[in-house]
Amino acid sequence: MKASQFFISTLKEAPADAEVVSHQLMMRAGMIKRLGAGIYNYMPMGLRVIRKVEAIIRDEMNRAGAVELLMPVVQPAELWMETGRFQAYGPELMRVKDRHDRDFIIQPTSEEVITDIARQELRSYKQLPRNFYHIQTKFRDERRPRFGVMRGREFTMKDAYSFDRDKAGALKSYQLMFDAYKRIFDRFGLQYRAVAADTGAIGGDASHEFQVIADTGEDAIAYCPTSDYAANVELAEAVSLIATRAAPTQALAKTPTPGKSTCEEVAALLGIALATTVKSLVLATDDKNEAGDIVKTTVWLLLVRGDHAMNEVKVGKLPGLKDAFRFATVTEIEEHFGCKPGYLGPIGLKKPVKVVADRTVAAMSDWVCGANEADFHITGVNWGRDLPEPDLVADIRNVVEGDPSPDGQGVLAIQRGIEVGHVFYLGTGKYSQPMKAQFLDENGKPQPFEMGCYGIGVTRILGAGIEQNHDARGIIWPASIAPFQVAVCPIGYDRSAEVQAAADALHAELLALGVDAILDDRGERPGAMFADWELIGVPQRVVLSDRGLKDGQVEVQGRREAEASKLPLAEVAAAVKARLGA
Amino acid sequence: MKASQFFISTLKEAPADAEVVSHQLMMRAGMIKRLGAGIYNYMPMGLRVIRKVEAIIRDEMNRAGAVELLMPVVQPAELWMETGRFQAYGPELMRVKDRHDRDFIIQPTSEEVITDIARQELRSYKQLPRNFYHIQTKFRDERRPRFGVMRGREFTMKDAYSFDRDKAGALKSYQLMFDAYKRIFDRFGLQYRAVAADTGAIGGDASHEFQVIADTGEDAIAYCPTSDYAANVELAEAVSLIATRAAPTQALAKTPTPGKSTCEEVAALLGIALATTVKSLVLATDDKNEAGDIVKTTVWLLLVRGDHAMNEVKVGKLPGLKDAFRFATVTEIEEHFGCKPGYLGPIGLKKPVKVVADRTVAAMSDWVCGANEADFHITGVNWGRDLPEPDLVADIRNVVEGDPSPDGQGVLAIQRGIEVGHVFYLGTGKYSQPMKAQFLDENGKPQPFEMGCYGIGVTRILGAGIEQNHDARGIIWPASIAPFQVAVCPIGYDRSAEVQAAADALHAELLALGVDAILDDRGERPGAMFADWELIGVPQRVVLSDRGLKDGQVEVQGRREAEASKLPLAEVAAAVKARLGA
Repeated sequence: MKASQFFISTLKEAPADAEVVSHQLMMRAGMIKRLGAGIYNYMPMGLRVIRKVEAIIRDEMNRAGAVELLMPVVQPAELWMETGRFQAYGPELMRVKDRHDRDFIIQPTSEEVITDIARQELRSYKQLPRNFYHIQTKFRDERRPRFGVMRGREFTMKDAYSFDRDKAGALKSYQLMFDAYKRIFDRFGLQYRAVAADTGAIGGDASHEFQVIADTGEDAIAYCPTSDYAANVELAEAVSLIATRAAPTQALAKTPTPGKSTCEEVAALLGIALATTVKSLVLATDDKNEAGDIVKTTVWLLLVRGDHAMNEVKVGKLPGLKDAFRFATVTEIEEHFGCKPGYLGPIGLKKPVKVVADRTVAAMSDWVCGANEADFHITGVNWGRDLPEPDLVADIRNVVEGDPSPDGQGVLAIQRGIEVGHVFYLGTGKYSQPMKAQFLDENGKPQPFEMGCYGIGVTRILGAGIEQNHDARGIIWPASIAPFQVAVCPIGYDRSAEVQAAADALHAELLALGVDAILDDRGERPGAMFADWELIGVPQRVVLSDRGLKDGQVEVQGRREAEASKLPLAEVAAAVKARLGA
Repeated sequence: MKASQFFISTLKEAPADAEVVSHQLMMRAGMIKRLGAGIYNYMPMGLRVIRKVEAIIRDEMNRAGAVELLMPVVQPAELWMETGRFQAYGPELMRVKDRHDRDFIIQPTSEEVITDIARQELRSYKQLPRNFYHIQTKFRDERRPRFGVMRGREFTMKDAYSFDRDKAGALKSYQLMFDAYKRIFDRFGLQYRAVAADTGAIGGDASHEFQVIADTGEDAIAYCPTSDYAANVELAEAVSLIATRAAPTQALAKTPTPGKSTCEEVAALLGIALATTVKSLVLATDDKNEAGDIVKTTVWLLLVRGDHAMNEVKVGKLPGLKDAFRFATVTEIEEHFGCKPGYLGPIGLKKPVKVVADRTVAAMSDWVCGANEADFHITGVNWGRDLPEPDLVADIRNVVEGDPSPDGQGVLAIQRGIEVGHVFYLGTGKYSQPMKAQFLDENGKPQPFEMGCYGIGVTRILGAGIEQNHDARGIIWPASIAPFQVAVCPIGYDRSAEVQAAADALHAELLALGVDAILDDRGERPGAMFADWELIGVPQRVVLSDRGLKDGQVEVQGRREAEASKLPLAEVAAAVKARLGA
């Protein structure tokens, strides 16, 4: 491709509404152009990246035995009523009426349509397993679209759906997709982690998010550098940091801590380790009668170590607290503890509360907590001796860096990530059963399909890839998804016949080697030309000049390299190909 | 590709709502699956054809210097208000509101968005010419969707838009696209014609439709088999069939023609050629004042030869009749002709009418027309002698088979066709000017872009291709857009190790030669297997059996061939490649 036959449009400044670096750089590099809130034109430079991302996805999906089809953007609402999603889906679901006043939706995803296809097409167990996918435009009417393609309204997604005869088969299909996703993300050349994800709200019990690692990511990921373990921080299991509870060595003592209500302040005041303090959090649950009136309220005291944070997702799964807890009111707290929040603890209660200790807290001895009296704490607290054993010991905290990995293979580190892929075991409850999507088993008996769904945010890959790979000068694309792999930059293309001939020949040679090269024949000055390709993020640059060519030399510079290398013109094409790892 | 890894789903019977053969065959071959009225899932077999069609289009568009981008499906209504199309477009335009009650449309085409891009991106004459295209999902809410993908609501279209500094440039861009379209349709392997089209309603003065020839087509095309001339029948120029008017030889005579009101009946009764008769058609135009009241009505008599038909499109372009004529009422006719319709003519009028003669009629002598008296005609009529020369001589009829081609290169034939492509010179009035899309010329003066637009109905190509290429057994795809080019059909793949080995090897050999082959390893009986591939329309079939392999022979059969040829196994891959013209 010659630059004069392509469309290059770079900007010095990003528009003010571009908040994150990927959005800024995509706008500046001329990859996207805003059409409306969360709606972008993909300009030629951006579309090339999308097509490369799609090609890798398609290749690996096919290799994994999935078959591509194409489901419509505009879908009849009837199917979405069968699963109840037409009603249940929030305003993110774009609803539209046709000229005959019939309801349709603009697809945010295609479970209903593919299940409708399956219930018509897959009639026998002999046709299973089956995995269909498509790469199609999606629309989600986000309340607050932002961050460019990272949270847009219209976007491109690859979504795949597997159909199996039983759960064992479905989990095998899941594993096939999991493995395909690893190959896909490996080929993207992005740092990523497959992260165990929450399956709570949607049901099913296997789910992984594929997170592209980036400091600016919305999600925190706990992972073990010496094993495969990775999970969202909110889901990562926090083990006890103390193997066995030690015997008491201190006597119980009330200590004045005037105005020091946090564990940090108390530890500093008393000159003790933060890890000897225990934080009290008070929750409540309400039992209601059929009329919805509260008939009984239970107050819960949750104890986590002073340097730990409570995890509401984990708490929400505990018996008695499941899906229904709230924070206690100040009145409830005073009633049970005889004290305002800030100096609470499990000793000397006015009324009984249920005590839940984090695993680590349950193994502590000689610890410090509030005295249930303003401006006082208690030190030397020991389970059994000074208070009863907790009602419940559970994992109720977030993991922190340095925690043992739950798989016992090392210690956890924490990184931030951007979710760009998701594999999900669905089972039968969400789609097959409500839509009566069944096949006949060996005995001729109808059975619901065991389903899985598997998404990759195609356009989001661009944003996440840039968040991970950029510097002050612009984007740094991995070679596999760069819009072009090499920029051939002749200096004086329009003035020097020798430069022109050498540049044309090198360009042709690179193309013949299968390298996706662009020849910059625009006649820009070297500074502007180099700045463009650095902003656009092309991985390799070759500069040809009259002076260099006199010695038969050209300059090659990788996008991450501080300096160029001189190479003989005759060797440069092969060298560039090798540098691309192609 | 192995059939077991693909998805094949054929039907013996087409659903009752499939009215045309392409719809029936696409349903039966498992290419599409209905989701709603005019909305289809493209199943794996159909999607392969779409992808091949898209690849050819993309290749030739790029070669012609057009640059691909991608514009959104959901577009803000504001832009469509700038051109007035939001209001003017009928209910075919799908309108939708987002969660903030803002207006959007589902794109049926993208002139507004591309013009918005151009007015921001193309600031100088130096950036012109420029041609952008995309291949994207479109939606048109047809009142009566039918014929499968031929008149669906959701479909895929390639639309390109050119921007030039002046009309000469725009016509050059137009010609580039015209030539690219010829290459595209040549590569599709479909019989087609580039047909001069009406530009009336949209403006501009260059427009061609690319019509795929098919007996079932909605449009009639007049073309010259010995030249490039082709036009919609309604637009094809009808020249005079008589070079010079001959001198009168007959006297004027009134002849009784009781009950014979049509030219055919009169010619039969009098034993004369239909080509000596003249048909009278009476139109009217009304002049109105500013209040909209009719202040004057003019009655027009249009004369075409008895074997010709009046063309309302042509009449609608005549001075005085332009865009405003209606058929005259019986009262008006009686008032002016003193006679009811059926025996009308230009001689002996009660009140003056404007007489418009078709070119051929104006050159006739000794002709026959109604006598303006019930049950009577006049014979031997001659211009000048019996009545004044016509007020206007013009082309007001449809061409018929055998007419001279307007380019003087032969005679016209008529075929039916299906419009699948359209190239259109737009000028500045429709989009550039209302949207103030301007560039700066050499003098720094803002000028509106001269635009053109160029569409190909990607999904419609499938329907049109099948309407043209099918037989009683199914579809017959051209090799370039067939879902697979060769079906390797082993008999007893699961029973004979020798057959399996030979089939696997041949399949691999074909793939290595770049032939898109599918190996049917489903274990179907030969009859069912052959019927499937004939229905699906794969151009070449190779059958391997134990018996044939004993002699080292396999059978090759082209989809249009009545019988198979025996070929040595070692030669068959190369032979098949040659048969495909690949």
